Amino acid sequence: MELLWFTFDIIGTIAFAISGTLVGIGRRMDIFGMLVLALATAIGGGIMRDLMVGNIPPNSLRTFTYVFIVMAVTFGVFFIYRVRRAHYIGTRWVRRMYLGADTLGLASFTVTGAGIGVYSYPEMPVLAVILGLLTAVGGGVIRDILAQRVPSVLREEVYALPAIIGGIVYYGFYHMGQWQLASYSAFIIVVVIRTLALRYNWSLPRIR
Amino acid sequence: MELLWFTFDIIGTIAFAISGTLVGIGRRMDIFGMLVLALATAIGGGIMRDLMVGNIPPNSLRTFTYVFIVMAVTFGVFFIYRVRRAHYIGTRWVRRMYLGADTLGLASFTVTGAGIGVYSYPEMPVLAVILGLLTAVGGGVIRDILAQRVPSVLREEVYALPAIIGGIVYYGFYHMGQWQLASYSAFIIVVVIRTLALRYNWSLPRIR
Amino acid sequence: MELLWFTFDIIGTIAFAISGTLVGIGRRMDIFGMLVLALATAIGGGIMRDLMVGNIPPNSLRTFTYVFIVMAVTFGVFFIYRVRRAHYIGTRWVRRMYLGADTLGLASFTVTGAGIGVYSYPEMPVLAVILGLLTAVGGGVIRDILAQRVPSVLREEVYALPAIIGGIVYYGFYHMGQWQLASYSAFIIVVVIRTLALRYNWSLPRIR
Repeated sequence: MELLWFTFDIIGTIAFAISGTLVGIGRRMDIFGMLVLALATAIGGGIMRDLMVGNIPPNSLRTFTYVFIVMAVTFGVFFIYRVRRAHYIGTRWVRRMYLGADTLGLASFTVTGAGIGVYSYPEMPVLAVILGLLTAVGGGVIRDILAQRVPSVLREEVYALPAIIGGIVYYGFYHMGQWQLASYSAFIIVVVIRTLALRYNWSLPRIR
Repeated sequence: MELLWFTFDIIGTIAFAISGTLVGIGRRMDIFGMLVLALATAIGGGIMRDLMVGNIPPNSLRTFTYVFIVMAVTFGVFFIYRVRRAHYIGTRWVRRMYLGADTLGLASFTVTGAGIGVYSYPEMPVLAVILGLLTAVGGGVIRDILAQRVPSVLREEVYALPAIIGGIVYYGFYHMGQWQLASYSAFIIVVVIRTLALRYNWSLPRIR
Repeated sequence: MELLWFTFDIIGTIAFAISGTLVGIGRRMDIFGMLVLALATAIGGGIMRDLMVGNIPPNSLRTFTYVFIVMAVTFGVFFIYRVRRAHYIGTRWVRRMYLGADTLGLASFTVTGAGIGVYSYPEMPVLAVILGLLTAVGGGVIRDILAQRVPSVLREEVYALPAIIGGIVYYGFYHMGQWQLASYSAFIIVVVIRTLALRYNWSLPRIR
């Protein structure tokens, strides 16, 4: 289980570091502001997750791995932007990359959050599902609050919903003894639901 | 003690779930955005409280109780709004319901916060009072930040003050061995002070 | 070590209480709103720091010390303002005092954050540096979010950078067995870099 969990944690970290960096660029931050924003986005949700189950110190602060990944992503994206700016990178392409990264991060961290929940307290389904949700949306909420945007989780339709469904699916499969299937299927379900929702502009009921 | 504490925790959860849902409706969020906002408002303060004293995992994530309450409140309020909208529900009535719910939540969570503080570390009065304050205003601060409003605790006069007084009263009675009286009197004091302050527009000194 | 660490923690608390109070005055808050804002600014970063390493309950909530300091600062600044307002206190002077307090707080809390990190888990350099950064900027971020300003850490050039450098310096000297030198040099480096950066308008690379 270790390796699979770790893989999803790394994918989520890379994805959210990209989304944080892109928001930082959009806000015309300097390179260190961008780095702090990318770091908060990439490891913020995981830190909340770890605090909730007493996983001290938080996983992402124990080794160089996560910080190095975020630095590499931020400097990489920054460099590409500086070199190729305005020539090759269109606004629509950036928007797409942002949404793609955000979706991958959402899906990966649903898996790591629900995974830590179910692993630490197997008899608490609510904990697993809420930890999946919190880990998935936490970093993005920190990113959006720091950058003074309305948090995606409240602005976008079909954002929290896939993370909740993913967490329930994870918990279900895990308790059937299928922890590998739990990870893969939760990840895929989040990606598919959110991608379809973005593509076809799904909307949920609201008060008009 | 257990049952009384639990009762106040449930009252506070219902009250803040209502206030979160109403803010969500005011911001024209969809049903899931509202649910996430109500959840963050209702259980956010209590989670901070539990983390501060090492109560892991947080109380509200151990069972279905709290999440079910929040879901019932959100869907209930949403349904009432959809069915009766514009006919029976006036803006003033909504404002009053919001303030009432917010006041009940403030009072209940002052009790549960100060209660956990004094129960975990009886010799630390500051911890008890600050935990009462943090639990009482924490959920509302999260709600207001997520919904991009100026937090009530900074905007409204006489908001933090009753929670602080309530916490001190709680600590005092508890140490006289009157833990039941501590709960009831702290609750009543918060409700009375805040209600009077709202009714008569009390204001505190400030720099002009 | 205890006493030196404690000294920096107190300096940081006073400095951030001043910065929080000044922001509260700028936002025309009442005296209790100011107190809550000053408290959140002064002890918020340290609480996050303590939660990260399982230092429960947080240091600042165990005794009256920190809360009394914040109250004294807030009431003191408030009183000075009320008495001398518009006669002696110019806007530029306030701005300078704010920046000075913020810089002192940043430097002191870099030391206490990195110190607790390296003391709790000596073999984790990333933890020490990130705890230094988090403690240093955490209270200010809470202050700015509550007061609905763009967080200094993202707005100002050369804000996170000195805290990161200070944390690395601290870790280096500490591991050479020079824990006193670690504290002093980290503190001085943060103050010097940030002061020079403010004075000469240093700026970091960004995307135009």
